Amino acid sequence: MDRITAHYLIETPYKLEDAAAVLAGEQSSGTFVTVPGETETLKKRFAARVEGIEELESITHPSIPGDIHNSKFKRAKVSVSWSVENFQANIPTLISTLQGNLYELRQFTGLKLDDFDLPKWYEGKFRGPAFGSEKTKNLANVKPGRPMIGTIIKPSIGMSPEETAKLVKELIEAGIDFIKDDELMASSANSPFERRVKLIMNEINRFEQKTGKKVMYAFNISGDYDTLKRNYDTIVENQGTCAMLSINSVGWTAVKAIADRGELSIHGHRNGWGMINRHPMLGINFPAYAKLWRLAGVDQLHVNGIRNKFWESDQSVIRSIKSCTSSFLGLKDLLPVVSSGQWGGQAFDTYKFTNTTNLLYMAGGGIMAHPSEPAGGVKALKQAWENAVVGKTLEETAKENKEFRESVEKFGGNAKR
Amino acid sequence: MDRITAHYLIETPYKLEDAAAVLAGEQSSGTFVTVPGETETLKKRFAARVEGIEELESITHPSIPGDIHNSKFKRAKVSVSWSVENFQANIPTLISTLQGNLYELRQFTGLKLDDFDLPKWYEGKFRGPAFGSEKTKNLANVKPGRPMIGTIIKPSIGMSPEETAKLVKELIEAGIDFIKDDELMASSANSPFERRVKLIMNEINRFEQKTGKKVMYAFNISGDYDTLKRNYDTIVENQGTCAMLSINSVGWTAVKAIADRGELSIHGHRNGWGMINRHPMLGINFPAYAKLWRLAGVDQLHVNGIRNKFWESDQSVIRSIKSCTSSFLGLKDLLPVVSSGQWGGQAFDTYKFTNTTNLLYMAGGGIMAHPSEPAGGVKALKQAWENAVVGKTLEETAKENKEFRESVEKFGGNAKR
Repeated sequence: MDRITAHYLIETPYKLEDAAAVLAGEQSSGTFVTVPGETETLKKRFAARVEGIEELESITHPSIPGDIHNSKFKRAKVSVSWSVENFQANIPTLISTLQGNLYELRQFTGLKLDDFDLPKWYEGKFRGPAFGSEKTKNLANVKPGRPMIGTIIKPSIGMSPEETAKLVKELIEAGIDFIKDDELMASSANSPFERRVKLIMNEINRFEQKTGKKVMYAFNISGDYDTLKRNYDTIVENQGTCAMLSINSVGWTAVKAIADRGELSIHGHRNGWGMINRHPMLGINFPAYAKLWRLAGVDQLHVNGIRNKFWESDQSVIRSIKSCTSSFLGLKDLLPVVSSGQWGGQAFDTYKFTNTTNLLYMAGGGIMAHPSEPAGGVKALKQAWENAVVGKTLEETAKENKEFRESVEKFGGNAKR
Repeated sequence: MDRITAHYLIETPYKLEDAAAVLAGEQSSGTFVTVPGETETLKKRFAARVEGIEELESITHPSIPGDIHNSKFKRAKVSVSWSVENFQANIPTLISTLQGNLYELRQFTGLKLDDFDLPKWYEGKFRGPAFGSEKTKNLANVKPGRPMIGTIIKPSIGMSPEETAKLVKELIEAGIDFIKDDELMASSANSPFERRVKLIMNEINRFEQKTGKKVMYAFNISGDYDTLKRNYDTIVENQGTCAMLSINSVGWTAVKAIADRGELSIHGHRNGWGMINRHPMLGINFPAYAKLWRLAGVDQLHVNGIRNKFWESDQSVIRSIKSCTSSFLGLKDLLPVVSSGQWGGQAFDTYKFTNTTNLLYMAGGGIMAHPSEPAGGVKALKQAWENAVVGKTLEETAKENKEFRESVEKFGGNAKR
């Protein structure tokens, strides 16, 4: 029978084999005492199976509170598998199994879901992203060979629809491909969702009629279920092309229900991600996380950026970008949303390490605070990418391009860590 | 204007005032450079405000990776407030603000949302639990003065609907109030949801007709949105009284949409909780978590149990039980679901520390593996609670009650840590 395999990083004061067996037992047919119905036939069909244990380093301090009867804690990679018979095509139940009560087990002083593999049985069971990277770029008339260039409305919250639409007009004319609401902004007292959509889409549609270029705007539709549906409809009615969701706050089931409609590219904002990822030995890593949201039908997923303003390492960001584009059940890829402290200088390393332009590359302050206004900021980002793709260096690009040179002068210092 | 106040535990190598200011800036109108639109008027209305800082201990090792330019890390309680104008009644956006990108800030080496307060403005905006503890107990004909006594179908997964119904019949006749699916079981290959509900409700309805006692069964409806709705309907059609959801896996928006229907008591299973809570300096604490699910309309929420089989301390479990019953916007309370390694022996301390019988007290192995069969297990739990409430000790109760004495003999040893 087809099996699902999950890959964990574990840390435990117990023998690795024993700890892995506890994990498998807790997440399938076992409990703390033997119960009558747990027959051999049932176990064979439904019990989780430990597929592999690869011992890593040992440490002397436990990462998280647990059963500390020892002063040595072993780390390992452990793979565990389940039959698809346990779940069928029910992803919330798969989530509850792969990342459920196992985090409560005191036999572990560290536990992180790194990745999982689904068998062929799942092919065709989920549509996944309706647009993926290619169709999302097409919606905004972005040609292959360069990333979509985007920005975020700042200040994050507080501007009226009129003020926002004015800024949008300026950004459109500056040559931007993509603009988004901040995740803090859904429908505030002075910026009701419907009015914001109407005024912003007026600007976008007018520019499209004039030039043929349709800028994508990700409106933050996050809210309760009726709000999600109503806001989605509002975007469609106003000829928008994209809806943004705070996916962790809204949750898997409602995100999938909205993505299933398939009329808009879904921008998945991962705010709250630090809660479940920041500790190296607790929570979930991006490869597993990205697969869950790809199954739900998200098209665009945040991955942070090289030399970002947050805590995440470049190595981790690169791994995330690769996760978005790796093959998975024949589904369309996710468009990685690169952001946080980006201004164009990171384009060179981003391209060098990922070798892809299927990206949404976003700069907030890097565009808005550019010395030659937003138009200069957008130009600088495009110059950076055009040159990165043909193998030029940051220094060469700065020498030959005025706007990019201005970016380096303004942001080059404090963006390096 | 009415303000929402969030209370955090923080850890930082920076000056506490500076770190708190970064948090407030990131979660409202700020970004990494000053942008043109951030006027004083806008800031006054929409910016987050640091309301208080209470310094705690300092440590020499950072809890989570961050900006480590120092060898001293200060801990503090920090309160931050926002105007309701930023959110209106939109809880996913409130979640994205209170527990969003702030977990990414490298200025912190620890950050945990402990609790939050909502102003009067929110009164009447949310129905909250449709049943709460009292009406949920009423649905199962449980009189005031004792907890609901419940159990979990074990093995968690693998039994057919016929086998499960047979076990349910046995448990009903043993005098149980409440039975639930395991969170690993939604609709497996050999136990399709609809057939399971039909056969189990047959037993429950037949017993009700005979005795007037309606046992509550929490069917795990977790799945995508269509599955949730269909499964909910199936329970209603078969005269069930309760639906279970893996709330973290399904997510806030869909849980609220289903709870809004108000025909069934909602059993909120918190599997995955360890991911966001287990580290003492990362994630969220139960008081904040319980409020979010109470707003969504969950009626019953898992809190673990005293001397549980997991890692959580008794002190933390007691705080969680109190969170469920504390007053909040005039909403009904949450029925705390006490479980994990419970067998009745913990009734005495549970009552002593919480002074409430508005509990769902669940034992799995503690009932199923009782020497006098499940009937003995249920009797033992009832004896434990009847005696705990009148102030008797475990020892006195064991002396005077055969079934409870058998529990002490079987489980008393390994249940103590």
